[in-house]
Amino acid sequence: MPLETMNMPQSLLEYEIRKQPETLRRLLDDEAANIQRVAEAIRARAPRFVLLAARGSSDNAARFGQYLFGAHNRLPVALATPSLFTVYKSPPNLSDALVLAVSQSGRSPDILAVIQEGRRQGALTVAITNDIFSPLAAFAEHRINLRAGLERSVAATKTYTSSLLALAMLSAALSQDREQRRSLELVPALVSQTLAQADTVIAAAAAYREAEACVVIGRGYNYATAFETALKLKELTYVLAEPYSSADFQHGPVALVENGFLVLVVVPEGETAIELTSFLQELKPRSPRLVVVSPFQPVLDLATTAFSIPSGIPEWLSPLVAILPGQLFALGLALAKGNDPDQPRGLHKVTLTR
Amino acid sequence: MPLETMNMPQSLLEYEIRKQPETLRRLLDDEAANIQRVAEAIRARAPRFVLLAARGSSDNAARFGQYLFGAHNRLPVALATPSLFTVYKSPPNLSDALVLAVSQSGRSPDILAVIQEGRRQGALTVAITNDIFSPLAAFAEHRINLRAGLERSVAATKTYTSSLLALAMLSAALSQDREQRRSLELVPALVSQTLAQADTVIAAAAAYREAEACVVIGRGYNYATAFETALKLKELTYVLAEPYSSADFQHGPVALVENGFLVLVVVPEGETAIELTSFLQELKPRSPRLVVVSPFQPVLDLATTAFSIPSGIPEWLSPLVAILPGQLFALGLALAKGNDPDQPRGLHKVTLTR
Repeated sequence: MPLETMNMPQSLLEYEIRKQPETLRRLLDDEAANIQRVAEAIRARAPRFVLLAARGSSDNAARFGQYLFGAHNRLPVALATPSLFTVYKSPPNLSDALVLAVSQSGRSPDILAVIQEGRRQGALTVAITNDIFSPLAAFAEHRINLRAGLERSVAATKTYTSSLLALAMLSAALSQDREQRRSLELVPALVSQTLAQADTVIAAAAAYREAEACVVIGRGYNYATAFETALKLKELTYVLAEPYSSADFQHGPVALVENGFLVLVVVPEGETAIELTSFLQELKPRSPRLVVVSPFQPVLDLATTAFSIPSGIPEWLSPLVAILPGQLFALGLALAKGNDPDQPRGLHKVTLTR
Repeated sequence: MPLETMNMPQSLLEYEIRKQPETLRRLLDDEAANIQRVAEAIRARAPRFVLLAARGSSDNAARFGQYLFGAHNRLPVALATPSLFTVYKSPPNLSDALVLAVSQSGRSPDILAVIQEGRRQGALTVAITNDIFSPLAAFAEHRINLRAGLERSVAATKTYTSSLLALAMLSAALSQDREQRRSLELVPALVSQTLAQADTVIAAAAAYREAEACVVIGRGYNYATAFETALKLKELTYVLAEPYSSADFQHGPVALVENGFLVLVVVPEGETAIELTSFLQELKPRSPRLVVVSPFQPVLDLATTAFSIPSGIPEWLSPLVAILPGQLFALGLALAKGNDPDQPRGLHKVTLTR
């Protein structure tokens, strides 16, 4: 292979994964002023709680928002149960809610239904979408444009990290915290730094070619990372990957782990690190195969396969970086299994559910 | 085998599964007056939303509460993220919340932390527990006693259905709806009627002896049934069973389904029936093995293995009946795999997580 083609992306998916420093930079540069305006509208209304409506990867981003708005803005967050709006037609009282929808396509009918009901009840409605001309953008009172460019691969990658960053920018604008805003500026470079080892991660995944099932563990802010890593694995590799918080995992599912069982664990810097390290040490006697994403060398030393991420990232922003090895691992595993990463079987880019 | 021992339970788990008509009857008879008082205290405070805190099977019961309080009481419900209270120590503002904890043991430190913070902030706090002398019962302002008797098997069964019924009784007391209260009285007989086919379900599970993975699909009220069925399978059979709503499943994970893949689906009477029937028909060309729980014969005819439940159950109460085939299937599969259903590997009855 000629040298200059060695790092040419072999798929749309890989191309879009590698685009993330650029798409995140564009969001920071071009959408900050609008997000500031949306935050002012929210502060003016002082909603009592947030209802987050999303599906698929966007729902995983919403899960990050649940922790972020709770921890940084003291806002209780409920994840919407769209069937209350569409199937049962008995929506809860949303009069003093902030109804926040996340959808890259802006087209899922159930997410639209939540925004429409929010408006009908006089709630403040905000749509975070990659298509500013979508029905969702039209129905919401305020909109945030992800500016990630058209996502052509079926599995979401750049729109996922852009959704995380948009939520982080909105939270920081709500809390009017300068240090948080400065931290946001670091994200594209940290993402770029993590992607520098992309080829290594893709290659390492081949060792798990025969894997059929695994669990993915994260906690707190990175509970979202566990969900999104598991979803990429299911979409691209057909491995039955189930996400867990380390706490929930101990309430039953830990019974699954025996010799050779594959466990992926995300151990970022911050408040969850000590607990997750103990969790890994307790798992060790069951002889699982451990894939660990962490900036800590002693934690990486516990792993069968270790993916390091940069240190010095505030924990609340770590999901933007910690998902990258998951995206690349799923891509590498899809390739090793002989699957086309751009055409997962039976999936379409826009899924219409009610 | 002498005739009179044929229906003798072979395990604590089976004994406790068969006890459910009795434990549910006791809850209805002995706890209704107290639940009425708790409901009056809640109505007097008019909370703006509910924060539900639970882990494991109790968290699955809480998921039922999320739909019920939303649909019948117009209350928005957030499932607590305990790490905001314990790990990050940045809890959201709960001043006008109803903080509702569900825990059979009343001992999980993270659930305690949510109730304690609720009290500190002046929220109304209610504990639903099977141990009225537990720390959780002591810390909460109000308590509801599940009265299910000591649960000796590690996997929760009778405390799960009692938690569902306690939530249903509380919701009906809040809405002051006589027809709902009358429907509640039907539950023990319907549970008894469903358990009459227990031996058939246990025996049918043996056909799936070699299963290592599956998904469990439910929607709306029975999203909880999907979660709890999956948890029983994981705890008792070590099958990697992942729960999904039919809508979320179509946003990616449907890619998993290929020839012979095991899919369990709950199709109750009510608003979700048509959609779930279409879902089954769309799945058919992928040739999965379908285990279906439903009162509808045409739906059961789509199944590889069909478990019928009684008809005439209001949808909001169907989770109390629809979980029974799941409990029995998990028990039967554990026995067929040679596992001890009373001693799942690596689990304890009380799990202490923070």
